[in-house]
Amino acid sequence: MIDIDILRKQIRKSFSKKRAEHIFGCEKTAALLAAKYGGDKYTVRLCALLHDITKEKNHEEQLKLCKEYGIILDNAELYVPELIHAVTGAHVALHIYGVGLREFDAIRYHTTGRANMTMLEKIIYISDSIEPERSYDGVDDIRKAAMKDLDEAMRLALDRSILFLIKKKKIIHTDTIGARNYLYEKCL
Amino acid sequence: MIDIDILRKQIRKSFSKKRAEHIFGCEKTAALLAAKYGGDKYTVRLCALLHDITKEKNHEEQLKLCKEYGIILDNAELYVPELIHAVTGAHVALHIYGVGLREFDAIRYHTTGRANMTMLEKIIYISDSIEPERSYDGVDDIRKAAMKDLDEAMRLALDRSILFLIKKKKIIHTDTIGARNYLYEKCL
Repeated sequence: MIDIDILRKQIRKSFSKKRAEHIFGCEKTAALLAAKYGGDKYTVRLCALLHDITKEKNHEEQLKLCKEYGIILDNAELYVPELIHAVTGAHVALHIYGVGLREFDAIRYHTTGRANMTMLEKIIYISDSIEPERSYDGVDDIRKAAMKDLDEAMRLALDRSILFLIKKKKIIHTDTIGARNYLYEKCL
Repeated sequence: MIDIDILRKQIRKSFSKKRAEHIFGCEKTAALLAAKYGGDKYTVRLCALLHDITKEKNHEEQLKLCKEYGIILDNAELYVPELIHAVTGAHVALHIYGVGLREFDAIRYHTTGRANMTMLEKIIYISDSIEPERSYDGVDDIRKAAMKDLDEAMRLALDRSILFLIKKKKIIHTDTIGARNYLYEKCL
Protein backbone atom coordinates (compact mmCIF):
# COMPACT_ATOMS: atom_id res chain seq x y z
CA MET A 1 0.00 0.00 0.00
CA ILE A 2 1.38 3.37 -1.01
CA ASP A 3 1.92 5.85 1.85
CA ILE A 4 -0.16 8.89 0.87
CA ASP A 5 1.97 11.27 2.99
CA ILE A 6 5.19 10.13 1.31
CA LEU A 7 3.52 10.45 -2.12
CA ARG A 8 2.44 14.01 -1.27
CA LYS A 9 6.02 14.90 -0.30
CA GLN A 10 7.31 13.42 -3.57
CA ILE A 11 4.81 15.51 -5.51
CA ARG A 12 5.66 18.72 -3.67
CA LYS A 13 9.35 18.08 -4.38
CA SER A 14 9.16 17.10 -8.04
CA PHE A 15 6.37 19.29 -9.46
CA SER A 16 6.03 23.03 -10.05
CA LYS A 17 4.17 24.84 -7.26
CA LYS A 18 1.18 25.46 -9.52
CA ARG A 19 0.89 21.84 -10.63
CA ALA A 20 1.32 20.57 -7.04
CA GLU A 21 -1.45 22.90 -5.84
CA HIS A 22 -3.72 21.58 -8.61
CA ILE A 23 -2.96 17.98 -7.63
CA PHE A 24 -3.61 18.61 -3.91
CA GLY A 25 -6.80 20.52 -4.75
CA CYS A 26 -7.88 17.57 -6.84
CA GLU A 27 -7.11 15.20 -3.94
CA LYS A 28 -9.24 17.24 -1.51
CA THR A 29 -12.15 17.48 -3.96
CA ALA A 30 -11.94 13.75 -4.69
CA ALA A 31 -12.05 12.93 -0.96
CA LEU A 32 -15.11 15.18 -0.58
CA LEU A 33 -16.90 13.53 -3.50
CA ALA A 34 -15.97 10.06 -2.20
CA ALA A 35 -17.52 10.96 1.16
CA LYS A 36 -20.69 12.06 -0.65
CA TYR A 37 -20.98 9.27 -3.21
CA GLY A 38 -19.52 6.39 -1.24
CA GLY A 39 -16.11 5.86 -2.89
CA ASP A 40 -13.11 4.60 -0.93
CA LYS A 41 -11.18 7.65 0.33
CA TYR A 42 -7.72 6.09 0.12
CA THR A 43 -8.32 4.98 -3.49
CA VAL A 44 -9.64 8.34 -4.68
CA ARG A 45 -6.82 10.20 -2.92
CA LEU A 46 -4.27 7.90 -4.54
CA CYS A 47 -5.76 8.34 -8.03
CA ALA A 48 -6.03 12.11 -7.60
CA LEU A 49 -2.39 12.33 -6.48
CA LEU A 50 -1.25 10.18 -9.42
CA HIS A 51 -3.53 11.51 -12.18
CA ASP A 52 -1.00 14.06 -13.50
CA ILE A 53 2.11 12.09 -12.55
CA THR A 54 3.63 12.51 -16.07
CA LYS A 55 2.03 15.87 -16.88
CA GLU A 56 5.23 17.90 -16.63
CA LYS A 57 7.19 15.60 -18.91
CA ASN A 58 7.87 17.05 -22.35
CA HIS A 59 6.71 15.50 -25.62
CA GLU A 60 9.95 13.59 -26.15
CA GLU A 61 9.77 12.10 -22.66
CA GLN A 62 6.11 11.19 -23.22
CA LEU A 63 6.98 9.34 -26.42
CA LYS A 64 9.84 7.57 -24.61
CA LEU A 65 7.36 6.34 -21.98
CA CYS A 66 5.02 5.19 -24.78
CA LYS A 67 7.87 3.16 -26.25
CA GLU A 68 8.83 1.76 -22.84
CA TYR A 69 5.29 0.60 -22.03
CA GLY A 70 4.30 -0.41 -25.58
CA ILE A 71 1.61 2.26 -25.80
CA ILE A 72 0.16 2.75 -29.29
CA LEU A 73 -1.32 6.25 -29.53
CA ASP A 74 -4.56 6.83 -31.39
CA ASN A 75 -5.15 9.56 -33.96
CA ALA A 76 -6.50 12.10 -31.48
CA GLU A 77 -3.52 11.58 -29.16
CA LEU A 78 -1.13 12.05 -32.08
CA TYR A 79 -2.78 15.36 -33.00
CA VAL A 80 -3.40 16.60 -29.44
CA PRO A 81 -0.20 15.84 -27.47
CA GLU A 82 -1.72 17.09 -24.19
CA LEU A 83 -3.89 13.94 -24.17
CA ILE A 84 -0.85 11.65 -23.92
CA HIS A 85 -0.10 12.30 -20.23
CA ALA A 86 -3.30 10.48 -19.21
CA VAL A 87 -2.11 7.31 -20.98
CA THR A 88 1.51 7.48 -19.82
CA GLY A 89 0.37 8.51 -16.30
CA ALA A 90 -1.83 5.42 -16.02
CA HIS A 91 1.06 3.18 -17.09
CA VAL A 92 3.47 4.81 -14.61
CA ALA A 93 0.84 4.42 -11.86
CA LEU A 94 0.46 0.72 -12.76
CA HIS A 95 4.12 -0.20 -13.29
CA ILE A 96 5.90 2.10 -10.80
CA TYR A 97 3.29 2.63 -8.08
CA GLY A 98 1.57 -0.75 -8.47
CA VAL A 99 -2.03 0.51 -8.62
CA GLY A 100 -4.82 -1.84 -9.73
CA LEU A 101 -6.74 -1.76 -13.00
CA ARG A 102 -9.66 0.30 -11.63
CA GLU A 103 -7.18 2.97 -10.58
CA PHE A 104 -5.35 2.61 -13.92
CA ASP A 105 -8.61 3.41 -15.78
CA ALA A 106 -9.45 6.39 -13.53
CA ILE A 107 -6.10 7.95 -14.50
CA ARG A 108 -6.28 6.73 -18.13
CA TYR A 109 -9.65 8.41 -18.73
CA HIS A 110 -9.33 11.51 -16.55
CA THR A 111 -8.88 13.81 -19.59
CA THR A 112 -11.19 12.34 -22.24
CA GLY A 113 -13.75 10.42 -20.18
CA ARG A 114 -15.32 7.37 -21.83
CA ALA A 115 -18.68 5.64 -22.10
CA ASN A 116 -19.96 3.82 -18.99
CA MET A 117 -17.51 5.30 -16.48
CA THR A 118 -17.17 3.87 -12.98
CA MET A 119 -17.87 6.04 -9.92
CA LEU A 120 -14.09 6.24 -9.32
CA GLU A 121 -13.48 7.42 -12.92
CA LYS A 122 -16.21 10.08 -12.60
CA ILE A 123 -14.87 11.31 -9.25
CA ILE A 124 -11.35 11.75 -10.68
CA TYR A 125 -12.64 13.37 -13.89
CA ILE A 126 -14.81 15.85 -11.97
CA SER A 127 -12.22 16.56 -9.27
CA ASP A 128 -9.74 17.46 -12.00
CA SER A 129 -12.37 19.79 -13.53
CA ILE A 130 -13.55 21.60 -10.41
CA GLU A 131 -10.74 21.57 -7.81
CA PRO A 132 -10.48 24.98 -6.07
CA GLU A 133 -7.64 26.27 -8.31
CA ARG A 134 -9.76 25.87 -11.45
CA SER A 135 -11.24 29.04 -12.86
CA TYR A 136 -13.23 29.17 -16.11
CA ASP A 137 -16.71 30.19 -17.28
CA GLY A 138 -19.24 27.72 -15.90
CA VAL A 139 -16.99 26.05 -13.30
CA ASP A 140 -19.33 27.08 -10.47
CA ASP A 141 -22.29 25.41 -12.19
CA ILE A 142 -20.27 22.17 -12.40
CA ARG A 143 -19.22 22.55 -8.73
CA LYS A 144 -22.85 22.98 -7.66
CA ALA A 145 -24.01 20.04 -9.78
CA ALA A 146 -21.21 17.84 -8.38
CA MET A 147 -22.66 18.17 -4.88
CA LYS A 148 -26.12 17.05 -6.06
CA ASP A 149 -25.79 14.72 -9.04
CA LEU A 150 -22.43 13.44 -10.29
CA ASP A 151 -23.84 12.43 -13.70
CA GLU A 152 -25.24 15.94 -14.24
CA ALA A 153 -21.84 17.38 -13.30
CA MET A 154 -20.24 15.01 -15.82
CA ARG A 155 -22.68 16.10 -18.56
CA LEU A 156 -21.88 19.77 -17.89
CA ALA A 157 -18.13 19.17 -17.70
CA LEU A 158 -18.04 17.07 -20.89
CA ASP A 159 -20.14 19.59 -22.83
CA ARG A 160 -17.92 22.39 -21.61
CA SER A 161 -14.86 20.44 -22.74
CA ILE A 162 -16.35 19.92 -26.25
CA LEU A 163 -17.30 23.61 -26.55
CA PHE A 164 -13.75 24.55 -25.53
CA LEU A 165 -12.23 22.24 -28.16
CA ILE A 166 -14.53 23.63 -30.88
CA LYS A 167 -13.54 27.18 -29.91
CA LYS A 168 -9.85 26.24 -30.05
CA LYS A 169 -10.32 24.30 -33.35
CA LYS A 170 -8.85 21.19 -31.76
CA ILE A 171 -9.56 17.50 -32.33
CA ILE A 172 -12.35 16.07 -30.11
CA HIS A 173 -11.55 12.58 -28.82
CA THR A 174 -14.40 10.17 -29.63
CA ASP A 175 -14.12 8.81 -26.04
CA THR A 176 -15.37 12.24 -24.88
CA ILE A 177 -18.38 11.93 -27.19
CA GLY A 178 -18.90 8.34 -25.97
CA ALA A 179 -18.85 9.54 -22.34
CA ARG A 180 -21.28 12.37 -23.10
CA ASN A 181 -23.70 10.34 -25.24
CA TYR A 182 -23.83 7.54 -22.66
CA LEU A 183 -24.85 10.01 -19.94
CA TYR A 184 -27.44 11.74 -22.15
CA GLU A 185 -28.89 8.39 -23.22
CA LYS A 186 -29.61 7.76 -19.53
CA CYS A 187 -31.85 10.88 -19.52
CA LEU A 188 -33.86 9.95 -22.63
CA MET B 1 -31.01 7.22 -66.10
CA ILE B 2 -33.61 8.95 -63.96
CA ASP B 3 -35.42 11.85 -65.63
CA ILE B 4 -34.76 14.83 -63.33
CA ASP B 5 -37.90 16.69 -64.53
CA ILE B 6 -40.16 13.71 -63.74
CA LEU B 7 -38.46 13.33 -60.32
CA ARG B 8 -39.08 17.01 -59.58
CA LYS B 9 -42.78 16.59 -60.45
CA GLN B 10 -43.00 13.53 -58.16
CA ILE B 11 -41.44 15.52 -55.32
CA ARG B 12 -43.77 18.50 -55.83
CA LYS B 13 -46.73 16.13 -55.75
CA SER B 14 -45.80 13.94 -52.78
CA PHE B 15 -44.10 16.36 -50.35
CA SER B 16 -45.34 19.31 -48.31
CA LYS B 17 -44.71 22.68 -49.97
CA LYS B 18 -42.06 23.57 -47.38
CA ARG B 19 -40.13 20.31 -47.79
CA ALA B 20 -40.32 20.52 -51.60
CA GLU B 21 -38.93 24.09 -51.51
CA HIS B 22 -36.07 22.90 -49.29
CA ILE B 23 -35.31 20.04 -51.70
CA PHE B 24 -35.35 22.30 -54.78
CA GLY B 25 -33.22 24.88 -52.94
CA CYS B 26 -30.78 22.11 -52.13
CA GLU B 27 -30.74 21.02 -55.79
CA LYS B 28 -29.93 24.55 -57.00
CA THR B 29 -27.18 25.01 -54.40
CA ALA B 30 -25.70 21.62 -55.23
CA ALA B 31 -25.60 22.48 -58.96
CA LEU B 32 -23.86 25.77 -58.13
CA LEU B 33 -21.26 24.02 -55.96
CA ALA B 34 -20.72 21.33 -58.60
CA ALA B 35 -20.04 24.07 -61.18
CA LYS B 36 -17.50 25.60 -58.79
CA TYR B 37 -15.78 22.44 -57.55
CA GLY B 38 -16.08 20.26 -60.63
CA GLY B 39 -18.75 17.72 -59.63
CA ASP B 40 -21.10 16.19 -62.21
CA LYS B 41 -24.25 18.34 -62.32
CA TYR B 42 -26.67 15.50 -63.06
CA THR B 43 -25.31 13.43 -60.16
CA VAL B 44 -25.44 16.25 -57.61
CA ARG B 45 -28.97 17.25 -58.74
CA LEU B 46 -30.12 13.64 -58.41
CA CYS B 47 -28.61 13.24 -54.91
CA ALA B 48 -30.03 16.58 -53.78
CA LEU B 49 -33.51 15.66 -55.05
CA LEU B 50 -33.35 12.25 -53.34
CA HIS B 51 -31.57 13.20 -50.08
CA ASP B 52 -34.82 13.67 -48.09
CA ILE B 53 -36.88 11.12 -50.03
CA THR B 54 -38.10 9.39 -46.80
CA LYS B 55 -38.01 12.51 -44.58
CA GLU B 56 -41.78 12.88 -44.28
CA LYS B 57 -42.34 9.25 -43.30
CA ASN B 58 -43.25 8.77 -39.65
CA HIS B 59 -41.22 6.69 -37.17
CA GLU B 60 -43.28 3.55 -37.74
CA GLU B 61 -42.81 3.81 -41.51
CA GLN B 62 -39.07 4.42 -41.03
CA LEU B 63 -38.77 1.27 -38.93
CA LYS B 64 -40.77 -0.68 -41.56
CA LEU B 65 -38.24 0.45 -44.21
CA CYS B 66 -35.38 -0.59 -41.90
CA LYS B 67 -36.94 -4.06 -41.63
CA GLU B 68 -37.53 -4.25 -45.39
CA TYR B 69 -33.92 -3.33 -46.25
CA GLY B 70 -32.26 -5.16 -43.34
CA ILE B 71 -30.96 -1.91 -41.81
CA ILE B 72 -29.53 -2.29 -38.30
CA LEU B 73 -29.69 1.09 -36.55
CA ASP B 74 -26.85 2.21 -34.32
CA ASN B 75 -27.24 3.66 -30.83
CA ALA B 76 -27.34 7.30 -31.96
CA GLU B 77 -30.03 6.52 -34.57
CA LEU B 78 -32.09 4.69 -31.94
CA TYR B 79 -31.95 7.71 -29.63
CA VAL B 80 -32.24 10.41 -32.32
CA PRO B 81 -34.99 9.21 -34.72
CA GLU B 82 -34.47 12.18 -37.08
CA LEU B 83 -31.17 10.56 -38.15
CA ILE B 84 -32.94 7.50 -39.57
CA HIS B 85 -34.24 9.19 -42.75
CA ALA B 86 -30.68 9.48 -44.10
CA VAL B 87 -30.24 5.69 -43.86
CA THR B 88 -33.68 4.74 -45.19
CA GLY B 89 -33.43 7.46 -47.88
CA ALA B 90 -30.15 6.01 -49.16
CA HIS B 91 -31.69 2.54 -49.34
CA VAL B 92 -34.79 3.81 -51.18
CA ALA B 93 -32.52 5.71 -53.60
CA LEU B 94 -30.52 2.52 -54.23
CA HIS B 95 -33.36 0.00 -54.43
CA ILE B 96 -36.19 2.08 -55.96
CA TYR B 97 -34.31 4.72 -57.98
CA GLY B 98 -31.30 2.57 -58.81
CA VAL B 99 -28.58 5.06 -57.85
CA GLY B 100 -24.97 3.90 -57.51
CA LEU B 101 -22.94 3.50 -54.32
CA ARG B 102 -21.34 6.96 -54.48
CA GLU B 103 -24.81 8.50 -54.60
CA PHE B 104 -25.98 6.09 -51.87
CA ASP B 105 -23.22 7.38 -49.55
CA ALA B 106 -23.95 11.06 -50.33
CA ILE B 107 -27.54 10.50 -49.16
CA ARG B 108 -26.50 8.14 -46.31
CA TYR B 109 -24.14 10.71 -44.77
CA HIS B 110 -25.95 13.96 -45.55
CA THR B 111 -27.06 14.42 -41.91
CA THR B 112 -24.10 13.16 -39.87
CA GLY B 113 -21.17 13.52 -42.27
CA ARG B 114 -18.29 11.06 -41.81
CA ALA B 115 -14.50 10.99 -41.96
CA ASN B 116 -12.88 11.29 -45.40
CA MET B 117 -15.96 12.45 -47.32
CA THR B 118 -15.98 12.54 -51.13
CA MET B 119 -16.59 15.81 -52.99
CA LEU B 120 -20.12 14.60 -53.79
CA GLU B 121 -20.82 13.87 -50.10
CA LYS B 122 -19.54 17.32 -49.08
CA ILE B 123 -21.59 19.08 -51.78
CA ILE B 124 -24.80 17.37 -50.64
CA TYR B 125 -24.03 17.95 -46.93
CA ILE B 126 -23.32 21.65 -47.50
CA SER B 127 -26.23 22.19 -49.93
CA ASP B 128 -28.56 20.77 -47.29
CA SER B 129 -27.05 23.18 -44.72
CA ILE B 130 -27.07 26.40 -46.74
CA GLU B 131 -29.84 26.21 -49.39
CA PRO B 132 -31.69 29.54 -49.63
CA GLU B 133 -34.58 28.50 -47.34
CA ARG B 134 -32.20 27.81 -44.42
CA SER B 135 -32.09 30.46 -41.74
CA TYR B 136 -30.03 30.12 -38.54
CA ASP B 137 -27.23 31.97 -36.76
CA GLY B 138 -24.04 31.60 -38.75
CA VAL B 139 -25.60 30.32 -42.00
CA ASP B 140 -24.22 33.29 -43.97
CA ASP B 141 -20.68 32.51 -42.78
CA ILE B 142 -21.08 28.94 -44.07
CA ARG B 143 -22.54 30.26 -47.37
CA LYS B 144 -19.57 32.59 -47.84
CA ALA B 145 -17.06 29.86 -46.96
CA ALA B 146 -18.76 27.43 -49.37
CA MET B 147 -17.92 29.71 -52.31
CA LYS B 148 -14.24 29.83 -51.35
CA ASP B 149 -13.24 26.60 -49.59
CA LEU B 150 -15.59 23.63 -49.27
CA ASP B 151 -13.58 22.06 -46.42
CA GLU B 152 -13.76 25.28 -44.40
CA ALA B 153 -17.53 25.37 -45.01
CA MET B 154 -17.71 21.74 -43.80
CA ARG B 155 -15.73 22.60 -40.63
CA LEU B 156 -18.08 25.50 -39.87
CA ALA B 157 -21.21 23.47 -40.62
CA LEU B 158 -20.09 20.46 -38.56
CA ASP B 159 -19.08 22.65 -35.59
CA ARG B 160 -22.42 24.45 -35.80
CA SER B 161 -24.22 21.10 -35.83
CA ILE B 162 -22.31 19.91 -32.70
CA LEU B 163 -23.01 23.21 -30.87
CA PHE B 164 -26.71 22.86 -31.75
CA LEU B 165 -26.83 19.27 -30.41
CA ILE B 166 -25.11 20.31 -27.17
CA LYS B 167 -27.61 23.17 -26.74
CA LYS B 168 -30.50 20.75 -27.32
CA LYS B 169 -28.94 18.07 -25.04
CA LYS B 170 -29.08 15.55 -27.88
CA ILE B 171 -26.81 12.63 -28.76
CA ILE B 172 -23.90 13.55 -31.09
CA HIS B 173 -23.24 10.90 -33.74
CA THR B 174 -19.59 9.84 -33.69
CA ASP B 175 -19.60 10.03 -37.53
CA THR B 176 -20.05 13.81 -37.10
CA ILE B 177 -16.99 13.93 -34.84
CA GLY B 178 -15.12 11.72 -37.32
CA ALA B 179 -16.01 14.12 -40.16
CA ARG B 180 -14.96 17.14 -38.13
CA ASN B 181 -11.71 15.69 -36.75
CA TYR B 182 -10.64 14.50 -40.20
CA LEU B 183 -11.04 18.04 -41.60
CA TYR B 184 -9.24 19.68 -38.66
CA GLU B 185 -6.40 17.14 -38.86
CA LYS B 186 -5.83 18.42 -42.43
CA CYS B 187 -5.16 21.90 -40.99
CA LEU B 188 -2.66 20.76 -38.35
